[in-house]
Amino acid sequence: MNQKLYQELVDREKERGLLSSLLELAEWDESTYMPKKGGPLRGEQKAYLAKKQHALLSHERTGELLHELEASSWLKEHGLERANVRGIRRAYDQAVKIPPRLIEELARLSTPSVEAWTEARRLSEFELFEPYLEKMIALRREVAKALGYKVSPYDALMDLYEPGATTAEIRPLFATMKKEIGSLLDRVGKSSRRPRGEIFERDYPIAQQENLSKLAMTALGYDLDAGRLDLTTHPFCRGMNPGDVRITTRYDLKDVRDGLFSTIHEAGHGMYEQGLRPDQWPLPVGKHCSMGIHESQSRLWENMVARSEAFWEFFFPKMRELFPSALQDVSQEQFVFAVNGVERSFIRTESDEVTYNLHIILRFELEEALIKGDLQAKDVPTAWNEKFESIFGMVPPKSAMGCLQDIHWSCGDFGYFPTYTLGNLYAAQWMECARAALPALEDDFRRGDFARLKNWLATNIYVEGQRMLPDELCNKIAGNDLSPEPLLAHLRRKIDRFY
Amino acid sequence: MNQKLYQELVDREKERGLLSSLLELAEWDESTYMPKKGGPLRGEQKAYLAKKQHALLSHERTGELLHELEASSWLKEHGLERANVRGIRRAYDQAVKIPPRLIEELARLSTPSVEAWTEARRLSEFELFEPYLEKMIALRREVAKALGYKVSPYDALMDLYEPGATTAEIRPLFATMKKEIGSLLDRVGKSSRRPRGEIFERDYPIAQQENLSKLAMTALGYDLDAGRLDLTTHPFCRGMNPGDVRITTRYDLKDVRDGLFSTIHEAGHGMYEQGLRPDQWPLPVGKHCSMGIHESQSRLWENMVARSEAFWEFFFPKMRELFPSALQDVSQEQFVFAVNGVERSFIRTESDEVTYNLHIILRFELEEALIKGDLQAKDVPTAWNEKFESIFGMVPPKSAMGCLQDIHWSCGDFGYFPTYTLGNLYAAQWMECARAALPALEDDFRRGDFARLKNWLATNIYVEGQRMLPDELCNKIAGNDLSPEPLLAHLRRKIDRFY
Repeated sequence: MNQKLYQELVDREKERGLLSSLLELAEWDESTYMPKKGGPLRGEQKAYLAKKQHALLSHERTGELLHELEASSWLKEHGLERANVRGIRRAYDQAVKIPPRLIEELARLSTPSVEAWTEARRLSEFELFEPYLEKMIALRREVAKALGYKVSPYDALMDLYEPGATTAEIRPLFATMKKEIGSLLDRVGKSSRRPRGEIFERDYPIAQQENLSKLAMTALGYDLDAGRLDLTTHPFCRGMNPGDVRITTRYDLKDVRDGLFSTIHEAGHGMYEQGLRPDQWPLPVGKHCSMGIHESQSRLWENMVARSEAFWEFFFPKMRELFPSALQDVSQEQFVFAVNGVERSFIRTESDEVTYNLHIILRFELEEALIKGDLQAKDVPTAWNEKFESIFGMVPPKSAMGCLQDIHWSCGDFGYFPTYTLGNLYAAQWMECARAALPALEDDFRRGDFARLKNWLATNIYVEGQRMLPDELCNKIAGNDLSPEPLLAHLRRKIDRFY
Repeated sequence: MNQKLYQELVDREKERGLLSSLLELAEWDESTYMPKKGGPLRGEQKAYLAKKQHALLSHERTGELLHELEASSWLKEHGLERANVRGIRRAYDQAVKIPPRLIEELARLSTPSVEAWTEARRLSEFELFEPYLEKMIALRREVAKALGYKVSPYDALMDLYEPGATTAEIRPLFATMKKEIGSLLDRVGKSSRRPRGEIFERDYPIAQQENLSKLAMTALGYDLDAGRLDLTTHPFCRGMNPGDVRITTRYDLKDVRDGLFSTIHEAGHGMYEQGLRPDQWPLPVGKHCSMGIHESQSRLWENMVARSEAFWEFFFPKMRELFPSALQDVSQEQFVFAVNGVERSFIRTESDEVTYNLHIILRFELEEALIKGDLQAKDVPTAWNEKFESIFGMVPPKSAMGCLQDIHWSCGDFGYFPTYTLGNLYAAQWMECARAALPALEDDFRRGDFARLKNWLATNIYVEGQRMLPDELCNKIAGNDLSPEPLLAHLRRKIDRFY
């Protein structure tokens, strides 16, 4: 009987999965190949698919099925099914708790808000964006209230992206990191060693960069039979199901890093999606665990693997072949230093592996205050600049390089930023565990063999999906809660090595 | 009140249109960019979209709305709405008359049947395909019976593609054509003039062929802001709505005709779809009139325009620039003759403008007999060869070059072939009318200006959609029923000119 109820719930979710996969296709196409005049219909198609998904999920039958299953003893004995019911319950509660009126208001505000932000950033005039930011904060506070929370309304928003994450747990983590990374930066400041930045002001023909990207992503293990690589302004990864996970990248003629690390980053996301359990699609156990865990997969390959010396022992000779004239006077040692350079800067997306986390911590502190009501929209530029100065020791010359640089707040994505740094923390934790489990892992990299590492990720992380919450997954794999130590140790080794 | 009922019908059709447009996107993507392992999910997505569309259309509420509107005096006074109701009634009747059991059986048979046909063609062994053909004929006969017909069951099937077309009307048309084209071929046979076929055995670099295609389709008027050109094995056109109509082509390094005429053919289909009334999407008045009328648009540009001498006066110098070495010893006169060569051959898709129609007439006669029960599946190879010999004066050396060459029957598409020749007949009719309305039209072509012709097609054909049935449209534009004369006159002029 309970088996039958469970199957009914699964069937409902499968229909929702089909609608969701069509939405993924529509969005991928919109960013890659859709002709200009296809926009209006695409908007209607997307709104229709989103509405249908919401109607299916928030239908009272979903609530009844969840209620009956949760009360059954059958579920207690079926762990995998229990994890799926838990995940669907999370999604259902979110869908029914947020009033449709609020969803509509957010949807209506989003387009003009992003437009205002775009224009404000272009002119570096915060005032143009301020009324939208104020309204967006107010609406997201309503969302937090509707969802409910124990301590901080910001927790309710973070939970949308990172189930179970709380300000109380993250604040001390981030405080330690702010302090430790600060001292690392002081050491860099005192060192006289500097990378050869002009390596990335040379000509790297785009056609060869395409070959480089293909070489890198297939070497790491991204399956082109279950995916593809296309060009977009902002690289992304979209998975319809494990058999169809598409990534995009972009190329800069001069700075070869941009395309290569974008491709590797997205391939990391892509391998995670390709490695999810196909038999559990599109149920929670067949879906990514959280945004933080997803980001740990991209950051692990981008930072832990593709910036390592072992990786470049395999890869630099290949690059030399692809770009003989750009790299003719560059040694492997100089090149590896150049992709590992550390420097304080204003723009998050252009920052290095070390300072990146400081950019996130700044945003975390500001948006928590905004959602709690301790900071007002109008005071954001001042608060940003003060905080930036206290962390980085410098002040952005204009808002476009300060509080206006990111799109997130204009779409209402408060609570998302922390998942980037959580991703870095998890990535370092996984790498530490993988190294302990797989002796001489770096030797594999030197041979261009990444199969053991990918297999470790597949069996420890990919196949788990949402069977566990992020912190449960960390405890299962590492035997401890998420700690700042693996990442800090990694960054320290890096500074020791290069500066 | 009736206005309100009509609006309800429109809203239902708009939802069906969104589902249909998503199916178009899914199918476009499947043929162009979908990775291999995306196939199983794509199958599920397509089946889901088709099922949802069928459920919406065949819903009893659709029937009620149609019934009430058809009985209302309001509809009599609203011509456009009446045309939409008529078109939806056609679709509704088809959807409710064919039993779901039969639809399922056809869907289930389709995949193994196409597979069997593929293998049978590869080995040229008709026996491998025979049982599937037999079953497919039986099922399509059931479809004809379910749909109903006055004279011949084949009429019911033709009507699915060409509303109102009947064997009684087509038989005399095709008989005249068979006879007249036969005498034209005798004249070709008696002439000593032959085109320089080896022009199409040279190297035409693919990148330049891409430029050629782009040049041609934009010159003719295909809007790349509302479409795109991609590569597929079998060129096609897919319209989601007038703002997003995508075409595909393919290139042969040696035979430059293949890509160029494929692109122009599909651009003809594409311009039709781009020119449909956006305010009537996805209602019948905002959709193509019939498959024959659709084909008239591709054939008009491909055969009437792009094989004309006037067209090549503009276009040949451009080709010379693009392919200086391949065309260095070829004159414009020789080139135009070469793209207008006429020769009896075995394969329909490789045949020329004149003999093409004979291939269609042969298929029409055979499939009518198959559906009526006058011919059995097992006797198809013999019947094909006998008929081929009587029409072409030669016998296919093997089934792969005879009755196994086309995919249509393996998917159950009986009644589709005649629309190809109807398209040719309509194309010649339109061209005659356009020439009469637009003095010195050929001079436009000589200047590479096709705007007046496209505009004539837009105002006379595109915007009409399904406001009229094909024969009504012909009468409105030409003042007469469809006649073989315009096409025969065109073909006679061609033979006069070149042979």
